[in-house]
Amino acid sequence: MIRGLKEGGLVPAVAQDWETGEVLMLAYMNEEALRRTVETGRAHYWSRSRGRLWLKGESSGHEQLVKEIRIDCDEDAILLKVEQKGGACHMGYRSCFYRNLEGVLVGEKIFEPDLVYRA
Amino acid sequence: MIRGLKEGGLVPAVAQDWETGEVLMLAYMNEEALRRTVETGRAHYWSRSRGRLWLKGESSGHEQLVKEIRIDCDEDAILLKVEQKGGACHMGYRSCFYRNLEGVLVGEKIFEPDLVYRA
Repeated sequence: MIRGLKEGGLVPAVAQDWETGEVLMLAYMNEEALRRTVETGRAHYWSRSRGRLWLKGESSGHEQLVKEIRIDCDEDAILLKVEQKGGACHMGYRSCFYRNLEGVLVGEKIFEPDLVYRA
Repeated sequence: MIRGLKEGGLVPAVAQDWETGEVLMLAYMNEEALRRTVETGRAHYWSRSRGRLWLKGESSGHEQLVKEIRIDCDEDAILLKVEQKGGACHMGYRSCFYRNLEGVLVGEKIFEPDLVYRA
């Protein structure tokens, strides 16, 4: 187990497109999320807002197939190199980082959230 | 101000090489770190272990010249596209993510920490 996940800890996990290098999103993992990610090859995270484990794409189908997992020097951050199905962002963008600090849209919108996340 | 920095919050900030797309490190920012980063064009972070603001490269000279700042959909994560001077990692690697989950070295060591971080 990596250091940052001891004693029930959460660590930030960065998902990066394994081919283009685009940074897609940042979410959090606990020990179980990392274990399931390794076991299934699909990115799992811990949702802090919902307080539960979360398979990325469970609602949208926009799964992340994990090609490589890296840890940082301090073992308190994770980098996932993934094949992103659809878009990573629930707002309809390929990447969650679709705005710059001034709020200008710089990312690519690739789907309509209302058509993907049905009630 | 972005949502995640309200009320003294900290948000994770991912530094990415603006040319190669390599993810270099993950650190944290508070409001002042972000403000100084914008004002100076050099990445500043909040060191959780030292409890103080930190200019990346203040000891090593390995500064990060900020080319672009992006925020994520929830405004609780930051992506910095930077020109990295030297190596981002205090262990001597270009990126802090120099190991995979199995502990195998996959990153490039580019300097000797003992020669850079002198007592």
